[in-house]
Amino acid sequence: MSSPRPATGRLYLVPAPLDFGCEAQAPLTEVMPAGTLAVAARLPCWISENARSTRAYLKRVNESHPLAQPLQALQIQELPREVHKKGDHGGQFDARPLLQPALQGQDMGLVSEAGMPAIADPGSSVVRAAHDLGVAVVPLSGPISLTLALAASGLNGQHFAFVGYLPQDASERADRLRQLESLAHKTGQTQLFIETPYRNTALFGALLQHLQGHTRLALSTGLTLEAGWSRSMTVQRWKKETPPALTLPTVFAIGR
Amino acid sequence: MSSPRPATGRLYLVPAPLDFGCEAQAPLTEVMPAGTLAVAARLPCWISENARSTRAYLKRVNESHPLAQPLQALQIQELPREVHKKGDHGGQFDARPLLQPALQGQDMGLVSEAGMPAIADPGSSVVRAAHDLGVAVVPLSGPISLTLALAASGLNGQHFAFVGYLPQDASERADRLRQLESLAHKTGQTQLFIETPYRNTALFGALLQHLQGHTRLALSTGLTLEAGWSRSMTVQRWKKETPPALTLPTVFAIGR
Repeated sequence: MSSPRPATGRLYLVPAPLDFGCEAQAPLTEVMPAGTLAVAARLPCWISENARSTRAYLKRVNESHPLAQPLQALQIQELPREVHKKGDHGGQFDARPLLQPALQGQDMGLVSEAGMPAIADPGSSVVRAAHDLGVAVVPLSGPISLTLALAASGLNGQHFAFVGYLPQDASERADRLRQLESLAHKTGQTQLFIETPYRNTALFGALLQHLQGHTRLALSTGLTLEAGWSRSMTVQRWKKETPPALTLPTVFAIGR
Repeated sequence: MSSPRPATGRLYLVPAPLDFGCEAQAPLTEVMPAGTLAVAARLPCWISENARSTRAYLKRVNESHPLAQPLQALQIQELPREVHKKGDHGGQFDARPLLQPALQGQDMGLVSEAGMPAIADPGSSVVRAAHDLGVAVVPLSGPISLTLALAASGLNGQHFAFVGYLPQDASERADRLRQLESLAHKTGQTQLFIETPYRNTALFGALLQHLQGHTRLALSTGLTLEAGWSRSMTVQRWKKETPPALTLPTVFAIGR
């Protein structure tokens, strides 16, 4: 007689706070729902962008929601380096082996360094593999910088796109900006993008240089942090302001 | 001597749970961060999609976070009917008068019936007016169906668009679907859209009828609810399944 197949575990998509890499931290229980923290505290197996930052996050979870197992007993598998930053979409990476614990009945968590995994962050290959294997996928509520910034932008939230990172080459970036601006004006579709924090100021300069004066430009920086702010005005008006400090993670949006 | 101008209040963007109009309700403290509920409990003035549903929401907030003032004492201004559903973006509606309390120093909340105001919901005209008046805008963390569904889709989360509602006319809808599918295949941009729940089943039928077999179609229904689920597979595979019940709010996504 064959032994019965164990029930399949679930893959929880666990948001992380948005203060990764920031000096100041948002109090975890203020920005994360208790339901999300309770699930995070009981999961035995993780798939993570970076095991070290996942351990740091779970230490914070433990302060309000004691972990079911000691940190050292948790299984944390890292996504391979090649799917970091540049994204794991496109099928070159087979994430199915990472989900073995779920097939053996364990609940698992997918987590990135900040915000929601698989959004502007690696993870979609794992989610896709879960669906392909019949592992139930459960996204948990938490802070997501793109949609917080969109809501705070005053730009069109019924029609919007996130386009990721812009090219680093100055002339390619200028072309891409003009293309996105033209799309925003023609179709009304808000265009959201991000940059590595140390390049934020250069990107902001390029925006003021290349966008039309009547285009609306919105910035949200340090979302959920005490020092965070959101501002939205025409490029023309931004030019009259003292350039803002953009050392914290920042979401940029343009629209009409 | 002129009296000093009072400090300006803030406009908080307050997410609501995703169970609006559903029989089952998600426990509020499980899906909303305590920080968000604490702010909601102390705000004296609201701008709302619907005053009745805002009162119902605040009654639920009161169970865990006692309101600073009795419900009847709160000022709740409704957005005019014409900005509902079809969106308030485009400048035809001047929301500045609604923000009078903030100019007089009161903190205010902007809230819709479900999820984040100004995302797939009215509110962006109010946020824009706040920026124009120098009222600080603070988005609060909470559940947002579009990004929860995107994360759970296994589709590209580094490049995506939300396109709102599709046309109701069957032939226009078919054209639009083929256009979105072509965009998704050519550019890799995931396309998200929604429908009024009672039309979900008709939309699902149209998707199976008009999309190509190898296109990936993801559905998230009843997000944050016990009965909710997320599934993602090719159109070809969906055709072999029993059509799912889609009576709860559902987010649709297609991609490659």
